[in-house]
Amino acid sequence: MTIISRSIPQSPTKSSSIGGWRGLIEEYRQFLPVSSKTPVITLLEGNTPLIPAPYLSAQIGRDVKVFVKYDGLNPTGSFKDRGMTMAISKAKEEGAKAVICASTGNTSAAAAAYARRAGMRAFVIIPDGYVALGKLAQALLYGAEVIAINGNFDDALKIVRQLSENYPVTLVNSVNPYRLEGQKTAAFEIVDVLGNAPDWLCIPVGNAGNISAYWMGFCQYHQIGKCDRLPKMMGFQAAGAAPFISKQPVDHPETLATAIRIGNPANWEKAWAASHASQGQFHAVSDEEILAAYRILGGQEGVFCEPASAASVAGLLKVHQQVPDRATVVCVLTGNGLKDPDSAVKHSNNQLKSGIAPELTQVAQIMGF
Amino acid sequence: MTIISRSIPQSPTKSSSIGGWRGLIEEYRQFLPVSSKTPVITLLEGNTPLIPAPYLSAQIGRDVKVFVKYDGLNPTGSFKDRGMTMAISKAKEEGAKAVICASTGNTSAAAAAYARRAGMRAFVIIPDGYVALGKLAQALLYGAEVIAINGNFDDALKIVRQLSENYPVTLVNSVNPYRLEGQKTAAFEIVDVLGNAPDWLCIPVGNAGNISAYWMGFCQYHQIGKCDRLPKMMGFQAAGAAPFISKQPVDHPETLATAIRIGNPANWEKAWAASHASQGQFHAVSDEEILAAYRILGGQEGVFCEPASAASVAGLLKVHQQVPDRATVVCVLTGNGLKDPDSAVKHSNNQLKSGIAPELTQVAQIMGF
Repeated sequence: MTIISRSIPQSPTKSSSIGGWRGLIEEYRQFLPVSSKTPVITLLEGNTPLIPAPYLSAQIGRDVKVFVKYDGLNPTGSFKDRGMTMAISKAKEEGAKAVICASTGNTSAAAAAYARRAGMRAFVIIPDGYVALGKLAQALLYGAEVIAINGNFDDALKIVRQLSENYPVTLVNSVNPYRLEGQKTAAFEIVDVLGNAPDWLCIPVGNAGNISAYWMGFCQYHQIGKCDRLPKMMGFQAAGAAPFISKQPVDHPETLATAIRIGNPANWEKAWAASHASQGQFHAVSDEEILAAYRILGGQEGVFCEPASAASVAGLLKVHQQVPDRATVVCVLTGNGLKDPDSAVKHSNNQLKSGIAPELTQVAQIMGF
Repeated sequence: MTIISRSIPQSPTKSSSIGGWRGLIEEYRQFLPVSSKTPVITLLEGNTPLIPAPYLSAQIGRDVKVFVKYDGLNPTGSFKDRGMTMAISKAKEEGAKAVICASTGNTSAAAAAYARRAGMRAFVIIPDGYVALGKLAQALLYGAEVIAINGNFDDALKIVRQLSENYPVTLVNSVNPYRLEGQKTAAFEIVDVLGNAPDWLCIPVGNAGNISAYWMGFCQYHQIGKCDRLPKMMGFQAAGAAPFISKQPVDHPETLATAIRIGNPANWEKAWAASHASQGQFHAVSDEEILAAYRILGGQEGVFCEPASAASVAGLLKVHQQVPDRATVVCVLTGNGLKDPDSAVKHSNNQLKSGIAPELTQVAQIMGF
């Protein structure tokens, strides 16, 4: 349906004159579980900018170079697109006519966009009364069919699992094995841009899928010599939802960083393995530290991310004294700040000055001239 | 401050190992009014995906190939970043310590992000009581100082002009000459990807700066042989704000496509020149046609844009019978749909089904199984 090709002559080509980035499946085809039979469903995701962070670099000093991997510039506004192009392409290959997930956030938006583009139906199951409609705006516009059940999130998760086992509908929740395969390509992109792996990778940890996927990506690139080192994987959790710190599940996770408000991570073992193998660490950051980083990113670097994304920068600032001199550090920003405008209004330091007379000298005075 | 270089050895280099897209000033330096003295303020804007639109292509048929240029994936979520990297870099070069604009939308967000990244103050002047705070969330988070004056938009525009004439603050409203220079690079990117200019370029027209900038870009590339043809420039206005159709200013422009709700376009002559020279056309599209296109883009192509952006697709669908067989058509989508979640909730066809019992067969039945 949307197969695009530039330089791989053997793959099916719709328009041979098309250049530019072809989406992550075509760009990294050799590293992904796809074949010539896989219909590639793509919105040209990936290829997100690795933006230098001069303010953060200067704050840390010692010639440390900080970058942010701004994955909020994926087509639906989060890193979930990386996994979803894989999950939906494989579902299409396997003949699925519909996909389903129990999510109210980035996963449901990505699932809906890719599924609809593939001509499939997209179902989202949520607990009734639990989710504000605004949170679902994006999924609805992408054409998701949203069903609110009487019950809680566990009930929703149970139902989607049952549905996928009993009806021709593919589950694209985090249990879908293809999602981490797609997500690992972010590590490839970082190495392709830097010319090597960074010294540190700082990343928010919720379900712990992304830290596991990045580690897979770095290891795979390392094995074939694309980089000659592996990064220290530095995982940061919100203090109120930090099972990797307490080393046990958290029954009632609480943090304003909703995208990482998870008490019982699905990828527990994989993430520990990545942390140990890379000599990495897990740390908790408070909501206040997350918000401080969120404001620095917006107000100093000009990068607007979701609060949860800022956990990576909050963590870096917390343990910055451990960063080696002249190190290269990449902080992963998983989602676009536009996903959560309420947080921006609520947590911005800058406020409106209103009721000012429209006179030159008066306005100038307020501006400090 | 954020000068990045890969393959141009003579340019100042902060980190010689950095590859990937370097932002539009470095990528298109030879076509832009910058010198080695210009401090490049960049968020690695540009390089936005040219996404094939298989549903729209099939709707039109006759082997017409439709693409959307999804400029909502720029760092602050709109095409304004293209102009702002130029405007702010030049302001910095000229020693400015602050910038100012009278805008409530995409311009203020872009101005704030780039100005703060450059270490400048960013002022936004708005009419008191006229603008919902949510509209300013992004600019506030980027650190803009917002001043609401007693008066209307004309008063705000007058004050910012006076301030820029009397104080050391640079005006980055659309009168800033560097903005169109930056915006023209979107045309370069399209040609670089397609290998030639498209047959048609469909674009929303409000202030008419972007259609003028695209035309500049295509002409410049054509002159040096990067393309061997020029596109027909098809400009689409909202019916309630369509001075290029009525051929006179509109006193009280009205449309839900707020980003193109402009009655007296600043780039009147330039846009007419582009239209005439390219044998293009202007057409009006109704708000209903805009919303229909908005829903098609989201629900069929998986691309979420601002309502105003969808005017380009609404226009194409309106005059599609004029498209030549086998033509390549590019529709410009200027802004990210996440900028306007209210419209998504309000205008999505899909609605929530609530109060459903959490039982497998009942949920399955609702899903149509």
